[in-house]
Formats: sequence, structure tokens, C-alpha cells
Amino acid sequence: MSTNRNFQLKKKKEPSVDEILQGIRKGDRYSLSKGITWLESKKSEHREKAHELINQALQKPQPSIRIGITGVPGVGKSTFIETFGKALADEGNQVAVLTIDPSSQVSKGSILGDKTRMETLSTHPSVYIRPSPSGDSLGGVAQTTKESILLCEAAGFNVVIVETVGVGQSETEVHSMVDFFLLLMLPGAGDELQGIKRGIMEMADLIVINKADGQNLKKAQLAQKQLAAALHYFPPNANGWMTPVMTCSARENQGIQDLWDKSKEFLNQVKENQHFETRRRKQSLQWFHQSLTENLKRRFLDQPEIRKQIQSLEQRIIQGEISPFYAADQLLLKL
Amino acid sequence: MSTNRNFQLKKKKEPSVDEILQGIRKGDRYSLSKGITWLESKKSEHREKAHELINQALQKPQPSIRIGITGVPGVGKSTFIETFGKALADEGNQVAVLTIDPSSQVSKGSILGDKTRMETLSTHPSVYIRPSPSGDSLGGVAQTTKESILLCEAAGFNVVIVETVGVGQSETEVHSMVDFFLLLMLPGAGDELQGIKRGIMEMADLIVINKADGQNLKKAQLAQKQLAAALHYFPPNANGWMTPVMTCSARENQGIQDLWDKSKEFLNQVKENQHFETRRRKQSLQWFHQSLTENLKRRFLDQPEIRKQIQSLEQRIIQGEISPFYAADQLLLKL
Repeated sequence: MSTNRNFQLKKKKEPSVDEILQGIRKGDRYSLSKGITWLESKKSEHREKAHELINQALQKPQPSIRIGITGVPGVGKSTFIETFGKALADEGNQVAVLTIDPSSQVSKGSILGDKTRMETLSTHPSVYIRPSPSGDSLGGVAQTTKESILLCEAAGFNVVIVETVGVGQSETEVHSMVDFFLLLMLPGAGDELQGIKRGIMEMADLIVINKADGQNLKKAQLAQKQLAAALHYFPPNANGWMTPVMTCSARENQGIQDLWDKSKEFLNQVKENQHFETRRRKQSLQWFHQSLTENLKRRFLDQPEIRKQIQSLEQRIIQGEISPFYAADQLLLKL
Repeated sequence: MSTNRNFQLKKKKEPSVDEILQGIRKGDRYSLSKGITWLESKKSEHREKAHELINQALQKPQPSIRIGITGVPGVGKSTFIETFGKALADEGNQVAVLTIDPSSQVSKGSILGDKTRMETLSTHPSVYIRPSPSGDSLGGVAQTTKESILLCEAAGFNVVIVETVGVGQSETEVHSMVDFFLLLMLPGAGDELQGIKRGIMEMADLIVINKADGQNLKKAQLAQKQLAAALHYFPPNANGWMTPVMTCSARENQGIQDLWDKSKEFLNQVKENQHFETRRRKQSLQWFHQSLTENLKRRFLDQPEIRKQIQSLEQRIIQGEISPFYAADQLLLKL
């Protein structure tokens, strides 16, 4: 039925910004998805509609919390979000899950994978799941995700979870768009670290050792102890929070409530000491300046002539023929 | 005597690029200083001369190692560099020390401070010390420092030490310009961490606990042990190096040779496994793109009209009236 309606809407005419906005405010999933599709679109008329939509949505800000979740492949992120998301939804929260998956740029398979992986959660009436668009650069996906957060909030989702695969630049991006950053780790401290990028551990507001069940339980508890001791030597957060290390088993639904309680403790603390607001304000301005720089750069670099010259300059820099700064100046003379 | 000559040169006429280059290649300090002054200059004819100078200098590349040193104020950086630098120079190295000190933007005092602080080292015949220019942005100082490294190398300095105060963005900058990054820490693990920025510890190739002397010795050794255990839980470096933790007393000249040996071990390893070359090449390209982006941005943002609009857009973003992305797009329409 709903497929039919979507089809008709698409066929007949594009809905207006107002129609979609009304739909979003009523919590209609189709409208929200349509809005996000506009955001992801390469067409400028869609982008304009999306911008109008977001500006309108911003007029009625909804209180919300944004949670970033990362971890190496194999740590059990999907199972974790499935269990964690359900606990949050059962508590009465409206939960949106957005994913940033650089690998989805390569294979469309992983997108379907995402959806299937969180099968139970995706059918929950209070949950909305949206995988990241494929075929886009990380910068593009990141900007779309930030804007999607705003739309999800307008649609009444008071918890927005942003998931990323912990293997590259995307964690830093996610960190810059959330209120609370959770790092999932595997029991043991050896090879599991290989996949984590240096610097990520220090970004985490909460570290959770997943798969603390069965034969892994003891190993997980030991890792928790040692990691907690290790974190003691990390510089403290500016907001006064000491990053805790907890264990859980998402598969067996063990420890999930505890770490959600701990998350709320963090959120209460930063709301009280104003760091929540400060962090959001800083992020907004950062989004603005980032978007400005990115677009400035793109306009300049997207010129085929410039691109060709950059390649040849890069070669000369690598050969040690010219200084990187001289090369940059030379290129800018073309402006 | 030399002051007199400088004065005459300045009064009479600006030296040519060739004259300065010849001077630099002969190891003349005045020529090197003049070259760096051109780099730091706001005048475009000076910048052009500086660029020509660097391009010329690059034609005869000298093997060198670039060492970054950071640590919170009070950790004893100057005393450390004094002792460490002397050990290196006594071993037959030509040592240049460049400093990046954001605080020097505020007071000219700290520059004089730098010079006085390393009094003994600065009189060593194989050592050249140059404090960072005052009154410039971090970005500006960083670019100048990178270019100064190239000039120092052309002048025959085979070890270039870049010192920075470990309290902000500047460590990340320094990390992106050196082959080897050394973090100085204080004995104990409590309040001393306050000043270190999160993420810096994971950048270090070597962590050294300074002031391991007298009453602090035991505390330093304990901290070393615990920190080494903590680092075990950090993701390993891409180059296969496990960051060691060592102790020293710069004041009493204890342990300096050991950590210089350890530094050489690191450098040998990364030279052998090609990570040294890879890191340098990556840095060169990064310098190029950074300089490109910075200059593009500056040209756009330095327009008074744009600056005014950014301020008003920032206000509207903070008030939640418009989305950061819409604001960026609006501004770019003026292009």
C-alpha cells in the first residue's frame, strides 16, 4: 500500500517543501525519507528544497541527544545498536539511526546488509534507520548526515544515533557531530587494537567492551580493569568527565541498561555544567566553516585545468624539485 | 663586529637571493637568518625571494632528521633541549632549533625568554636557535617553520628540532612536520596531565618523563612503568613502532644519551622499512594542500564585506535561525 502511494507521489509530482515539512512534523516516515533524499541529491533544486526544509525545521527546535557509536569491524556494532536502540525505544524514546559507512561507497551490498543486520530494530514503531548513501565522498556523506540529524530531530526523534565503522577518518567526523561518543571494543587488548585509529580512544566519552559473555567473560573483565587503569594516564576531558570502561554482551542483552544509565549520567553532567550547549554551538560553527572551506575548495579544484596542474605539481614536489608552498602560490596565481 | 656588518648590509642594499644562498650553503648564520626573515615577512617581494631561495636550496637536498619536542609548560623543555641539543652537537651533528610558541604572539617577552633560556646551547658553534615570529597566526607560524626547516637543512644542519608548547593546536602542526615526535612529561600522572591535549599522547614516538631526579626519581620510575603498561592498550603505530616510555633528568644530564640512542633506533627502523620516506612524502603533499586551502580561504575571508557577513551569519547560526550549511551556501553565492 505505502509503496503504491510513494510511487504515485513520485510519478505525479514532487511534493512541496511545505508538504514534506508537515509530514515530517507529524512523524511520517515517508516524508522524512524524502527530505533526506533531497539532502543526498546532486540536483541543485533538490538541495535548495532540502535547505529550505532544514531552515524551517530549525524554527521549532526539539530537545535531543546525539550519540556516536564506533568500533572495528567484527566488534558487533549492529547487534549492539539493535539491543541498545531497543532499550532506548522501550524506555519511550524515539530513536533514529544513521550510518556512515565508507565501504558502502564500494559495494551497494553493505547497505542492504545494514538494513538486514538490524532487522528487529527496524520494525520497532519508535525507530527509524537510514543507511548512508553510496557513491559519495566521506565529506559529502558527513555533511548529509549532519543535515539528516536536524531533519530526524524535526521529525520528533529525540535520540539520534550515528554509527560509523572505526577504521579511518569517519570517526573524527562523527565525533564532531555528536553529544556523546561511544567506542566499542573487543575483549582482550592485542590484535583487536590493530583496526582502531590512533587518537580515537582519546575521543571516547565511554568505552564499552562488547562480547563479554561465555568464554570471553573473564578476558573482558580483565581488559576492562587494565583499560580503566590505562585511561587514568590520559589527559582528562575539558568537561571534567573521566571516560569509564564498561562491559556488555549485546547478544545476550547483558549490561546494556547499565551503560545507558552511565550515558545518561554523562549527559546530565554536561548539561548541568553547560558543556553540552557549548559543544553543540562549537559544532554548529565548525559545520559552517567546514562547509565553507569544502565548497570553496571544490569550486577551485573541480576545474579540470587546475586538477591537471595539481597532479603535475604534486609530482614535482615529490621529486623535490619545488617547495610545496611555492607550488601552492603558483597555482593560486591562476585565480 | 658582525652586528656592524649586518647593519651595513641592511643600510646599503638588500642582498640578492644568490648572495644569501651562497651564504647559507657556506653555513653563514647571518645569511640563514636573513632568509628566514624573508620567509616571515609580510612583503610580497620578500616572500618571492624566500620562495626562490627555497626552490634553489631544494636542488641540493641534504639528509637530515626533523625532531618535534612538546610538553606542558613547566616540564622543562628548554633545559631538556639545552642538554639534548648539546649531546647531539657534541656527537658531530649540526643542530638547528626552531620554536613554535603561540604565546609569543601576545608578549614579545617570551621570545627573549627563549633565547635566554637556552643560553649555553645558543653559543655552541654547531647550534642555531631561532624563535618563532610574534604577532602571527598559528597557521602562519607553522608555514614559516616548515619553510625554515628547509632552509636550515640547506645550511647544513642535519638535525632540526622543532619545539612547541604542549597546550593546543600547535602539537598537531609540529607532528605534521617532523620525522620523530617526542613528548616530555612530568613524574606522576595526576594533575600533570591537565595541560596535555587529548590525542597528543597517541602521536608521540617516544615519551620521556623528565625531572627524574632527587625526590622525584621513584615517582618517575613508577610513572614510567604504569605509562608503559597503559600504552600497551593504544593502537600500534602504522610503522610497527611501539612507543617507549623513558625517564631522564635534563638538569642533571641523566639518561639523555639513552634516549638519543632510542631515537636513533626509531629512525633506523623507519628508514629501513621506508616509513621515513613515506611520511616525508605524505607531509610534503599535505603542506602543499594545506597551503593551497589556507590561501584560498584567506583570499575569500579577508574581504571586509565577507568578514562582516560571516559574523552576522555566525550569530544567526548560534541563535538556531539558519542551518550552518545554508549559511555557507549563501555566502558562496557572492563568489
